[in-house]
Amino acid sequence: MAARGAGAEVPSEERGRVTITEIARQAGVSVPTVSRVVNGRSDVSPDTRARVEDLLRRYGYRRRPAASGARAALLDLVFDDLDSPWAVEIIRGVEEVAHAAGVGTVVSAIHGRSGDAREWMRNLRARASDGVILVTSALEPVLHEELRILGVPLVVVDPAGSPALDVPTVGAANWSGGMAATEHLLALGHRRIGLIAGPPRLLCSRARLDGYRAALEGAGVPFDDSLVVPGDFRPESGFTGCTALLDLPEPPTAVFAASDQMALGAIEALRRRGLRVPEDMSVVGFDDLPEVRWSAPPLTTVRQPLADMGELAVRTVLRLTRDERPAAPRVELGTELVVRASTAPPATTG
Amino acid sequence: MAARGAGAEVPSEERGRVTITEIARQAGVSVPTVSRVVNGRSDVSPDTRARVEDLLRRYGYRRRPAASGARAALLDLVFDDLDSPWAVEIIRGVEEVAHAAGVGTVVSAIHGRSGDAREWMRNLRARASDGVILVTSALEPVLHEELRILGVPLVVVDPAGSPALDVPTVGAANWSGGMAATEHLLALGHRRIGLIAGPPRLLCSRARLDGYRAALEGAGVPFDDSLVVPGDFRPESGFTGCTALLDLPEPPTAVFAASDQMALGAIEALRRRGLRVPEDMSVVGFDDLPEVRWSAPPLTTVRQPLADMGELAVRTVLRLTRDERPAAPRVELGTELVVRASTAPPATTG
Repeated sequence: MAARGAGAEVPSEERGRVTITEIARQAGVSVPTVSRVVNGRSDVSPDTRARVEDLLRRYGYRRRPAASGARAALLDLVFDDLDSPWAVEIIRGVEEVAHAAGVGTVVSAIHGRSGDAREWMRNLRARASDGVILVTSALEPVLHEELRILGVPLVVVDPAGSPALDVPTVGAANWSGGMAATEHLLALGHRRIGLIAGPPRLLCSRARLDGYRAALEGAGVPFDDSLVVPGDFRPESGFTGCTALLDLPEPPTAVFAASDQMALGAIEALRRRGLRVPEDMSVVGFDDLPEVRWSAPPLTTVRQPLADMGELAVRTVLRLTRDERPAAPRVELGTELVVRASTAPPATTG
Repeated sequence: MAARGAGAEVPSEERGRVTITEIARQAGVSVPTVSRVVNGRSDVSPDTRARVEDLLRRYGYRRRPAASGARAALLDLVFDDLDSPWAVEIIRGVEEVAHAAGVGTVVSAIHGRSGDAREWMRNLRARASDGVILVTSALEPVLHEELRILGVPLVVVDPAGSPALDVPTVGAANWSGGMAATEHLLALGHRRIGLIAGPPRLLCSRARLDGYRAALEGAGVPFDDSLVVPGDFRPESGFTGCTALLDLPEPPTAVFAASDQMALGAIEALRRRGLRVPEDMSVVGFDDLPEVRWSAPPLTTVRQPLADMGELAVRTVLRLTRDERPAAPRVELGTELVVRASTAPPATTG
């Protein structure tokens, strides 16, 4: 086979099949040198690195899983931001399964900044991580592509919902959750039910809204878009959204907030107006964060199985490191209504 | 120098000075073999491993920091349990500084089980971690000793307070925090102030109690031990403790809960009795967890700078990997009273 020019096409049946020995031969370097490049070490001249990386990229090189007993395995668990209230729940689920498998969990945040994402990618290569669990849908396509070329298995944990990706994804049943929350309020006798919705750019917001709407229609209650106010999942927007609902000429008797944090904001808005939960207004959240068991009152909410989602993501990424296929490319774990003290039948107006 | 018998004493001035070459010579193996043992790899015969480990131990061998540009550095961040409400705050602080230094943060939980701790130690060696930040005071002495022998720098982040350790420790000013919380209630005019205390086995509980007592005495209010009820930092114990205070013949007009989670439990206990915060009872917490900004009402509390504590711990452990001394063996970062809506002057009894 003649040496290929830079950027030459590699027939698809050859991609991912070539050995590191063949890459070393074509690059005119030793196998250990190729290995140093693959593992991101810096003791390689820039020219050699560029030549080897070009070949690795063109052949869609996949690293083989580390031989048993070699260097301990590492997983990278990457968040947009660690101030997300569910970060620790996901870390807990991931760590438990990874630890049991003897795999270390490296936690990072890339803060939605592309500089940080590049830096993270460089570190990922340098530590020769065996797999990546991404808790975001926001990784830049170019970095996503780099991961693919490095052959590092990737699984996305996706509480926010995202368009179909070409990687395995673990999500939650957002539509059913929205429906369950609303059906609970309908069953208590509420007919005017407000919704503090999530950011429209996230599919999970749309799914929860559609679930709310489906429940209303199922009960023969007409959808009224003046009862839907926008939010961004943060408490402040729940406060503002609930205040807007209270200012309507005919306010609702119950509110479904599409996140627990917005539900806490809503409860505070009610408290400031001297209104009691659930006597004057019922409130349902979405997430079941640990702290809402002790909100005042304890919150009725839709449980997202965040730790379970983390666990499933690890099992999937470990399958991929063994070159096994995941059970399904996209899995949605079920959500569940948890009834506590923030919901009750509507007050009978005298 | 004659070969030493197993377990022979090594003069202290020789400890930590011997090179890996000398250890290889004494063990009768190659330097790469010693290196394999130090890095926890399994491709070494059990006999050889035992011989090398014995020598490493006797010489108190310290690994040298990795040469710049070699394998990417890793830090281990270890919790008792990841369900601690402040875990994510500490992870955030640690990750930010570590990421900026190009260091990966491996997060683990050892669940207070010694099997898990041993497993973790094995993984730590296998991944050749460069340093350890422990968020607990409960690591078994034998594992602590193993870390010392491996020469892995260790820093303890210690929100709970612990007796002086022979490693650098980052804590919080618990006594001053207890005093500030109590002085705030005194300044509002409260004279009967209940305390829901933390577990007595933790020094931080004692420090917060002593701060409470010092503030009372400073204001000329006699300490009344019937106003101090026990808790374990969890919400349930705040609920129970507050209920006990309400059942006193003469209940207090304000409660200082030695953790935010207990404060949330106390607020729920008051709500169940139909009492309002702060109109009927003032409540102060301790921690300033993110969620208490949105408790109902938003909680007045003492801020522990958890993310800052994590940051300082990383800086300290990175100094140690460069064989620099930390600034001080024990640092307590200042706590700060944050006044929100859960405290007010006592109701005037008519």
